[in-house]
Amino acid sequence: MYHVKVYITYKPSILDPQGEAVKTALHRLDYQNVETVTVGKYFEIDIKDDGRSIEDEVEKMCDELLANVNMETYRYEIESVTQTAED
Amino acid sequence: MYHVKVYITYKPSILDPQGEAVKTALHRLDYQNVETVTVGKYFEIDIKDDGRSIEDEVEKMCDELLANVNMETYRYEIESVTQTAED
Repeated sequence: MYHVKVYITYKPSILDPQGEAVKTALHRLDYQNVETVTVGKYFEIDIKDDGRSIEDEVEKMCDELLANVNMETYRYEIESVTQTAED
Repeated sequence: MYHVKVYITYKPSILDPQGEAVKTALHRLDYQNVETVTVGKYFEIDIKDDGRSIEDEVEKMCDELLANVNMETYRYEIESVTQTAED
């Protein structure tokens, strides 16, 4: 079993209105030292090992569904999780 | 300067309809080995060091704005970034 974490954010060239809105809100709450805010999506996915390359599978999942590759970039972390008997 | 990454997900007891929807979509794309999907929010925040405890500040930002603490949990990672002359 693999435990995969996927982080999806806008490409640097793309305006991030949500990030701007959060920054403004934080400044209003008196966190003036906040310089930049980027907002993104985060996925945690458990994937059974079926022998195929987990990196390829995760990248295909991102390209086909999880990320809008025109506007977003993604990175991921893969942890191999040993299944105990009762899993 | 600090570069902070914040990960916000639903508490385990809370139903995650988005996660279920993504899992169903992945199964339809033939990723049958996907067992569970959790969807969350992800923030990257650059914060100027003003001498106050960065951990306290990040936790207050999460409690006051970034997370709905009734339904969500958060974790964060803090990187200290040395500013170069032209920053």
